[in-house]
Amino acid sequence: MRTVFYISDGTARTAEAFGKAMLSMFPLKVEHRTLAFIDSPEKADAAVKRINSAHQQSGERPIIFHTFVSVDIKRIITASQGSCYDFLDYFVAPLSRELGIPAQPKTHRTHGIQEDYDFRIEAINYTLANDDGSNIADYDEADIILLGVSRTGKTPTSLYLALQYGIKAANYPITDDDDFEHLQLPRALKPHRHKIFGLTLEAQRLHEIRSKRREGSKYASMQQCRFELNAVEQLYRREAIPFLDSTRFSVEEIAAKILNETNLERHRY
Amino acid sequence: MRTVFYISDGTARTAEAFGKAMLSMFPLKVEHRTLAFIDSPEKADAAVKRINSAHQQSGERPIIFHTFVSVDIKRIITASQGSCYDFLDYFVAPLSRELGIPAQPKTHRTHGIQEDYDFRIEAINYTLANDDGSNIADYDEADIILLGVSRTGKTPTSLYLALQYGIKAANYPITDDDDFEHLQLPRALKPHRHKIFGLTLEAQRLHEIRSKRREGSKYASMQQCRFELNAVEQLYRREAIPFLDSTRFSVEEIAAKILNETNLERHRY
Repeated sequence: MRTVFYISDGTARTAEAFGKAMLSMFPLKVEHRTLAFIDSPEKADAAVKRINSAHQQSGERPIIFHTFVSVDIKRIITASQGSCYDFLDYFVAPLSRELGIPAQPKTHRTHGIQEDYDFRIEAINYTLANDDGSNIADYDEADIILLGVSRTGKTPTSLYLALQYGIKAANYPITDDDDFEHLQLPRALKPHRHKIFGLTLEAQRLHEIRSKRREGSKYASMQQCRFELNAVEQLYRREAIPFLDSTRFSVEEIAAKILNETNLERHRY
Repeated sequence: MRTVFYISDGTARTAEAFGKAMLSMFPLKVEHRTLAFIDSPEKADAAVKRINSAHQQSGERPIIFHTFVSVDIKRIITASQGSCYDFLDYFVAPLSRELGIPAQPKTHRTHGIQEDYDFRIEAINYTLANDDGSNIADYDEADIILLGVSRTGKTPTSLYLALQYGIKAANYPITDDDDFEHLQLPRALKPHRHKIFGLTLEAQRLHEIRSKRREGSKYASMQQCRFELNAVEQLYRREAIPFLDSTRFSVEEIAAKILNETNLERHRY
């Protein structure tokens, strides 16, 4: 099997994102290896050894996605036996011409980190404190309130919005207390209806998820899942609450679709 | 100010990552705009109107980072007045030659999402259930246990490891109950010491963070912060627990550094 290396003198997150996007174009199974913080010639030499050894073992040239600020260390890596791809290198010159300013690579990106950190920590703390319908007194502060029945992805989606975009995402569960037979918008949510976004799933999928948690229970039964989803979707339609069936989507896609539909402002990029 | 657009027929996460990495090379303030799910000629026409209108308003050509699967829709965008950058386009051909297989772009990436989703949900649920020292009975299952005094970044780091990499990250706080004067490794952690990773901060930074929470308290005082950090760092050294001073790092960097030092396996890329 091919080995793919993501290498950088920083976290290698950008090399990973770049490589992942490239590899998604090809139907191919690979071994992934991230080599982060390769910021000295000694570490670069050790990385080259790993690359060349993967080549010898599999007989196939490893694929290397890399982003380096240091030109000297980059040169050590590109002299390896791997097939190297560096997207920064190719695009910096044309972008520099368009912007009319020279590139200024930064090895130590301390500036602005603290502010960004505070902002996200605040969003994460807000989201954790407002998980699962707790703390409804704080809804004035919410950027968005996710609504849905149990196990429809409210918590991971809220956390992703907070961590990735600094968005204060509360979430509120519809439960048996809400009387599914005659489902109304919970009173605590009425003053905040413009911030509400609904989540739903296909009944079969919800049945599978709930069965992992409580196999054979009424809660997990197809009948109950269908009943709850039907009631909540009717509520969304009646109250004109935007909603999403997340059955076929990853957490990233669910978050992107919500941002797209609500025009909610990203607090960070 | 220049406007930067991230545009895609998918989530635009890749265009955002690509653009963010490119822009980090230039000292420049910009307006960010993400246009996701641009998957019809009508939506592409509307996007072009927004691009051209940003051009007219600022007098500067917008910068466009885009990734499209559909060639027809891409053509509509690249005919706008923006300055367009498409990293997939440039690298697909050489990578295809190296791999010896043609590219097969996928518009609907349903395959594998469900498995990936289940995996991360499980990690997130685990991490939430094991936040702040709760549930120590589950530590057998942990991939990593973050240790530190109050407000040193344990929770956001745990959540990031779970969401981004599917890692089951528990975290355990050192508190007054642990007797800072004669600090020992808490008994619950002893059987799991090989999984422990310590977090610490500079005292000034911890003082600032705690002051936002409880201004003027003993808990937030410089003296108390120094005392606790000193005690916990001595513990890390005495017990040979790897640890990190996260003062100057973003959550991404902290997570990447932990993965790098522990060789913990990423469960997803």
